[in-house]
Amino acid sequence: MNHPELNFRLNVNGEDLIIAVVQDYKTDEVLMVAFMNREALEKTIETGNAHYWSTSRNKLWLKGESSGHLQKVQEILTDCDEDAVILKVKQEGAACHQGYYSCFYRKLTREDEDINLEIVKEKVFQPEDVYGGK
Amino acid sequence: MNHPELNFRLNVNGEDLIIAVVQDYKTDEVLMVAFMNREALEKTIETGNAHYWSTSRNKLWLKGESSGHLQKVQEILTDCDEDAVILKVKQEGAACHQGYYSCFYRKLTREDEDINLEIVKEKVFQPEDVYGGK
Repeated sequence: MNHPELNFRLNVNGEDLIIAVVQDYKTDEVLMVAFMNREALEKTIETGNAHYWSTSRNKLWLKGESSGHLQKVQEILTDCDEDAVILKVKQEGAACHQGYYSCFYRKLTREDEDINLEIVKEKVFQPEDVYGGK
Repeated sequence: MNHPELNFRLNVNGEDLIIAVVQDYKTDEVLMVAFMNREALEKTIETGNAHYWSTSRNKLWLKGESSGHLQKVQEILTDCDEDAVILKVKQEGAACHQGYYSCFYRKLTREDEDINLEIVKEKVFQPEDVYGGK
C-alpha cells in the first residue's frame, strides 16, 4: 500500500507511532485516544476495523478482539504536521473497558486548590458481563 | 494545586507528558492534538487559557501567544487510564497555523493501492496575514 508519509515521530519502546483520536462518526463524541504504527494504520485501512499499537503489551491490537466491541472506520483525517489521525467510527457496543461508551467519562472539577474527578457519563454495560469475572 | 494523579507516562526528550485532545465546546469538532506536562495543565487550570508543552521547541507554550488565537477552556475531561485529557474550548480565530479552523483539514482517500490526502475544509484566514510574510 502506497500512502502519504505520515510522520510516525513518536517513539515508545522502540516503536514509531502516530496518535489516533477516535470519534463517533455521527455525534463527534471523542471515544478514546490510542497509538498506531504503520502496520496498524494499514490493517485499519485494509479491513475497515480499527487496529492500534498497544504500548503496554507491545503488540498490534484489533480493537474489540476480546469484547466484540469493534470499531468500523468511516473516515480518516490527518492534521497539519501529519503526526496524528482522527478515526470517525461506528462503535459496536462501547469503547471503554470500564463499561462507558467513551473512555472520557470523568470531568476535572476545581474546589479552591483541589482538583477532583467527577463521573459525568452513564455506564452502558457491566465490565464483568463482557470480560468475565475473576 | 492538588490534583488527581494523572498519568504523565509519555516521555518525550526527558519530559513527562499526557496527550491533550482539543474540541470546540459547541460543535465537538476536534481542533488539534498536543501534549501537556504538569506545569502546562496547572497553568491551563489557573488561567483558563490552554497551555501546552511544545515537543519541538522543548518549552511551555501558551496557545495563541503569537497569533492571538487563544483557547478559552470550558471543560476538561480525562480518560480511564488518565494519560489523556480532552479540553473543550472556545477558540479565538482558528486553531491551525495553516489557516484552517481545525488542524484536521485533510482526509485520507484510497484509490486501489494508493492513499492520498484530500483537503476537506475551508481556510478561515491567510497565514501570512497573521504570522507575517518572509
